[in-house]
Amino acid sequence: MDKKINIGIVGCGTVGLNVIKILQKHRSDINKKIGCGINIKWVCDKDSSRLKASNLPKEKLTTDSNKVIQDPEVNILVELIGGTDISRKIIIEALNNNKHVVTANKAVLSKYWDEIFSLALRKRVSVYFEASVGAGIPVIQSLNEGLVANKIQSIIGILNGTTNFILSKMTDDNMSFDEALKLAQKSGFAEADPTLDINGSDTAHKLSVLASIAYGNHLPFEKIYREGIANINLIDIKYAKNEFGYILKLLAIVKSDNNKISATVYPAFISAEHPLATVENEYNAIYIFGDSAGDIMFYGKGAGGPAAASGVTSDIVCLARNIFYRTAGKFPYVSYDKTLKLNIKPIEETECKYYLRFTTVDKPGVLANISGILGKNGVSIAACFQEQRHKKQSVPIFILTHKAKEGNIKKALKTIDSLSVINSKTVMLRILE
Amino acid sequence: MDKKINIGIVGCGTVGLNVIKILQKHRSDINKKIGCGINIKWVCDKDSSRLKASNLPKEKLTTDSNKVIQDPEVNILVELIGGTDISRKIIIEALNNNKHVVTANKAVLSKYWDEIFSLALRKRVSVYFEASVGAGIPVIQSLNEGLVANKIQSIIGILNGTTNFILSKMTDDNMSFDEALKLAQKSGFAEADPTLDINGSDTAHKLSVLASIAYGNHLPFEKIYREGIANINLIDIKYAKNEFGYILKLLAIVKSDNNKISATVYPAFISAEHPLATVENEYNAIYIFGDSAGDIMFYGKGAGGPAAASGVTSDIVCLARNIFYRTAGKFPYVSYDKTLKLNIKPIEETECKYYLRFTTVDKPGVLANISGILGKNGVSIAACFQEQRHKKQSVPIFILTHKAKEGNIKKALKTIDSLSVINSKTVMLRILE
Repeated sequence: MDKKINIGIVGCGTVGLNVIKILQKHRSDINKKIGCGINIKWVCDKDSSRLKASNLPKEKLTTDSNKVIQDPEVNILVELIGGTDISRKIIIEALNNNKHVVTANKAVLSKYWDEIFSLALRKRVSVYFEASVGAGIPVIQSLNEGLVANKIQSIIGILNGTTNFILSKMTDDNMSFDEALKLAQKSGFAEADPTLDINGSDTAHKLSVLASIAYGNHLPFEKIYREGIANINLIDIKYAKNEFGYILKLLAIVKSDNNKISATVYPAFISAEHPLATVENEYNAIYIFGDSAGDIMFYGKGAGGPAAASGVTSDIVCLARNIFYRTAGKFPYVSYDKTLKLNIKPIEETECKYYLRFTTVDKPGVLANISGILGKNGVSIAACFQEQRHKKQSVPIFILTHKAKEGNIKKALKTIDSLSVINSKTVMLRILE
Repeated sequence: MDKKINIGIVGCGTVGLNVIKILQKHRSDINKKIGCGINIKWVCDKDSSRLKASNLPKEKLTTDSNKVIQDPEVNILVELIGGTDISRKIIIEALNNNKHVVTANKAVLSKYWDEIFSLALRKRVSVYFEASVGAGIPVIQSLNEGLVANKIQSIIGILNGTTNFILSKMTDDNMSFDEALKLAQKSGFAEADPTLDINGSDTAHKLSVLASIAYGNHLPFEKIYREGIANINLIDIKYAKNEFGYILKLLAIVKSDNNKISATVYPAFISAEHPLATVENEYNAIYIFGDSAGDIMFYGKGAGGPAAASGVTSDIVCLARNIFYRTAGKFPYVSYDKTLKLNIKPIEETECKYYLRFTTVDKPGVLANISGILGKNGVSIAACFQEQRHKKQSVPIFILTHKAKEGNIKKALKTIDSLSVINSKTVMLRILE
């Protein structure tokens, strides 16, 4: 084969090294698929020891990303450095230099979607990003092409391995949050600073990417209502599992209803029978409801070098083929329409069932008081459990509600929590049907 | 938009009608994706009453498929008539007339893969077939493109809704096979003549399609070892579920091991914890193990008009875009290499764990006899349960084996079943780890 597609990889961590390995190992299969070969022209990292690990000839290695960006022979720049500032700069400069871009970086996409995709559109180049959500799970391409015949009614995702690992250990092994987090760190499923995972930001970045594809314009991170799992108590996980067969998961949810879109990330209970309930530990899953296909679920490892490299490499192959056949950039990879107004529904207007745990003083009349306030706010009770009085200072009361408006439940809880008979802030968790 | 891609739909059943509906309903989104519009130029069915149901103008309707095949303006022929004879003829003639083809027909693909894909390669046209496996689940494109960075080590599929519905009802509701089949027929999940579903043929057709993509050449239906579910007894489903937490599923399995490929369809037990165990009723799932991505599962409705139409329409959209940008047929959609030798491993050489139920005379020494014969054939026992003697004529003995060769277990059972203390043919079911 004569022609080769030149790529430059910027960021030589585990994902980058695995991409190099895959391109070498599966060279002949990949070349067959494309019609020509792929040449790794540059590997760039600011840390030269990481470059050495690639085992590539010295003349391909550089610590200066400008060498890659400004090389007119480079067809595809593969951005694998993460973060949002330097990565944005590199992606924008690459696009400006007419290079196609592959990235695994959900944070930069969710923050600079408009800038990146409007520039790509203008420069007639493509940005591919399969590994940004669910690593090797081919959900981006599927949303984009395989499910193109569908109006996407909802997407529910377990998109973060760290938090799913922690919740799995709490649910299955009765660990406390702190114990589970420590185990996750020890097992390599959580970073030293897991803040962005625990507080739901990573999940919200990924939901921003999925929703922006599904609805044709940027759904920014800031528009996503977000709660993390740092305050989850084992009591609630155990009680809801044993009494109602509910499993707690950190869920990313986007729903389209009458042209209003709600986008939320929060821990929520789902029935143990739901396909998402069986997604355990570091695994991810994306459950999509399309108006023709019905419910479709994608499941797999959502992180790790080889899995992410699988997604990155499939992007490189698809793009390289489009370059070889001269169609790359002729059509936008994702539908992006700046003029399309996404009408975001505030969390207060969303509806679901709720699990409530009240910590009350052990006095007669407390339950009547609570249920009265709920009722006044339009929240109707589906089930109520008060443990036998046991002369302790605090007694828990568990309530499951029928479907209610988030705004109403929050108003009711504000009133209830200000009562003198309530000992601590009421626990409120959502239940997904 | 000026240019339009013309399609001709041959076969106007529920899938065809749903394709027409989707193309009309999502016209503007689909046009945006392609860059131009799609014109349904012909709808063909031998039954003119079905044509009327399409609500399309008379001049687009025909009972003569030659009109579609010979119309030089038709870019894509969509074959939705099923079966293998007429559909083969129509596909081959369409390809010969330089038309691209979309089909949902696994039977014709699994039978005529070589003829169809070598002709498509020669004529430089494409054949797309997303809906042939798993209806709207985008597994064909994913295997073909999204997982292109992977060597596929195994595929395990629940590919037939009828049999999965029946086994689910037996497992969850203690129905007999006959009761469950009747319910499936009443609920629209089984045809009046369900033979091809029950005996595993439909599953094997679909496995043939998946394996042929994954391994680059035709893996014919006849090379797939096949057992159906007609002889499954409720006793075994209940016993294995209650005692060992095993769930019985009709599984399509293809594995590549040292360049030897085994391809089988049979009912097998899997752990209740396995993601495939939670795939219930009419749902399908495909569990793929790639060397980089790890285990990936695709889940969704495997049948039904709207779901199948979702897959067919996504094919039409992808192909139409390739036609619009003049790349359609420049590269083969699936890797097809006639010279690639697929080395098929006979079932006798495959290995797994086995569940055995012996029906024995209630006499001392029977168990010793059975276990002796198993041992002599290299089959080692992992667990054994003999019910308390109860003066009945027959006593069941349940044995789980360690991993053993299929050839050895079959030899052992042949000897055992010829013993005078054995009252009826031993039940042997495989256990997937």
